[in-house]
Amino acid sequence: MSVSEFQLIQRYFSSLGQSRGDVILGIGDDCALLRPRPEEALAVSIDTLVEGVHFSPGDDPESLGHKALAVNLSDLAACGAEPAWATLAIALPGVNTERLQWLAGFASGFDALARRYGVSLVGGDTTRGALSITVQVHGFVPDALALRRDGAREGDGIYLSGMVGDAALALRRRQGVDIGGGDFSDLEARLHRPEPRLALGSQLRGVATAAIDVSDGLAADLGHILERSGVGATLDLSALPLSPIVAAFVTRHDDWALPLSGGDDYELCFTASNQHRARLAQLGCHRIGRVTAEPGLRCLRPDGEIFAPLVSGYEHFRHD
Amino acid sequence: MSVSEFQLIQRYFSSLGQSRGDVILGIGDDCALLRPRPEEALAVSIDTLVEGVHFSPGDDPESLGHKALAVNLSDLAACGAEPAWATLAIALPGVNTERLQWLAGFASGFDALARRYGVSLVGGDTTRGALSITVQVHGFVPDALALRRDGAREGDGIYLSGMVGDAALALRRRQGVDIGGGDFSDLEARLHRPEPRLALGSQLRGVATAAIDVSDGLAADLGHILERSGVGATLDLSALPLSPIVAAFVTRHDDWALPLSGGDDYELCFTASNQHRARLAQLGCHRIGRVTAEPGLRCLRPDGEIFAPLVSGYEHFRHD
Repeated sequence: MSVSEFQLIQRYFSSLGQSRGDVILGIGDDCALLRPRPEEALAVSIDTLVEGVHFSPGDDPESLGHKALAVNLSDLAACGAEPAWATLAIALPGVNTERLQWLAGFASGFDALARRYGVSLVGGDTTRGALSITVQVHGFVPDALALRRDGAREGDGIYLSGMVGDAALALRRRQGVDIGGGDFSDLEARLHRPEPRLALGSQLRGVATAAIDVSDGLAADLGHILERSGVGATLDLSALPLSPIVAAFVTRHDDWALPLSGGDDYELCFTASNQHRARLAQLGCHRIGRVTAEPGLRCLRPDGEIFAPLVSGYEHFRHD
Repeated sequence: MSVSEFQLIQRYFSSLGQSRGDVILGIGDDCALLRPRPEEALAVSIDTLVEGVHFSPGDDPESLGHKALAVNLSDLAACGAEPAWATLAIALPGVNTERLQWLAGFASGFDALARRYGVSLVGGDTTRGALSITVQVHGFVPDALALRRDGAREGDGIYLSGMVGDAALALRRRQGVDIGGGDFSDLEARLHRPEPRLALGSQLRGVATAAIDVSDGLAADLGHILERSGVGATLDLSALPLSPIVAAFVTRHDDWALPLSGGDDYELCFTASNQHRARLAQLGCHRIGRVTAEPGLRCLRPDGEIFAPLVSGYEHFRHD
């Protein structure tokens, strides 16, 4: 790698996102120097996307830049935190003209989402290696109002912020599964350009008793809430918010695993007491079940039968 | 990857390092929740080590766990920051018995160094992929006392915290270069178990006018200080601190590129005004040259000739 190529890459990453007054020193020194909020907790989350695992070589780089940041912002949303800063570590197999175009697209997608949520890229590392992208995000939330996984209580309602199964169906279609005809652009967007539910996350402060973002599949992620809270749940599958194309696929193939274990939804799944039921409906949240004292997850199919989902979901042995 | 393997990995990473009172919520939720110091700046740095680039498949996993954290702590040292928290994103090609042993060794090396410096592992992500390790560290430093790269002034002395060239010579030996006989354990330790100069970094607050850690080679890293400060430098190569084995190699091969561009030294290179000269000598720092108004880096060989080092050093097109 020549020095001029090094400088070119630097140019792509030296000023991504929004400039912020709480960044004392950004990219270009040994460390970034940042000024946290004195009265709030600092929320941090780190996630890696690997080529061939989380995305394909031909995927649109701009969407990938968006997604690499979005999946991390989704973790902040699930804590009720307001985003502030990001760091980016990227491994690249090498640099040529095509790769530089790819980098420009990636940077553009990352930048647009970062600006939309007031995030500043403050540090990074670029190394040679198989293509992979690690982003860490940093945000703020008042300590006592942070949404956690361990507060669900018997009788709480279980809610979803939006539809599940779209991304999983888009992935199946890419893998060659026949999902019928139609316009798949919305489905593709759900897979490649997830929207972090940050506004809702903030509104759930003081309302949700527990929350998580649905990245590995609804059953697996709700399972984390149940396990950490020491409770169980009954889901009413007829109440699951599904897009028409997913609903048709589920009906045709009797495949409830798609919306329950598909993953990559990046909606919030949370629990809240029934006093908030009307307010949550106003916010567009879908009540899909309730928390039970009896442990385990029971899913009631529309025909009244019980469906036992594979709770491992899309599991990368992640530990965060 | 089975659920039990997932749990096994979780066990290795769920409580690494020292427990700290400023960690509100550690590993196991969407985000870690942390309590920064109200009066100090938060210093963050992220670095990736890739198998086949930064380390070899046969390398000792415990040393690698040490090094993955050490290279990041070295960045905090170069800012004069005191370390607090770390996050770890690791991509693994898969898990078998051998890999689990590897993980146990890695975790052990990471843990020992983290405990030594009071660092708590607060979050992470584990994914499938070619083996690579990304660590982000977080520390504290009073804003006005943070060491940066841009404060070197004409007339300042240039200092090194310790010897350069050992790691590069160890690497050459691994690559089959004949470096003579002897005991190479110290040399190997310098390559595989670098010691972050955190105590010195704190002592340099208010003393050093600029600082950087030497990871890509002395010439390249000092070059960053010179560029950011808008100055030049003259180095006296006879003043470079070299181990006997490196000194002998340099003399025999007339190879000044080894200590100047070799990389992986993880010593601090810094500038300071002459009023601190005696104090810095007491601290074991080596004065190796001085800052000049004239830009560029000039190295005077012991024979009085000028040596022009390749300043690109060990360059991964890093941008932090």
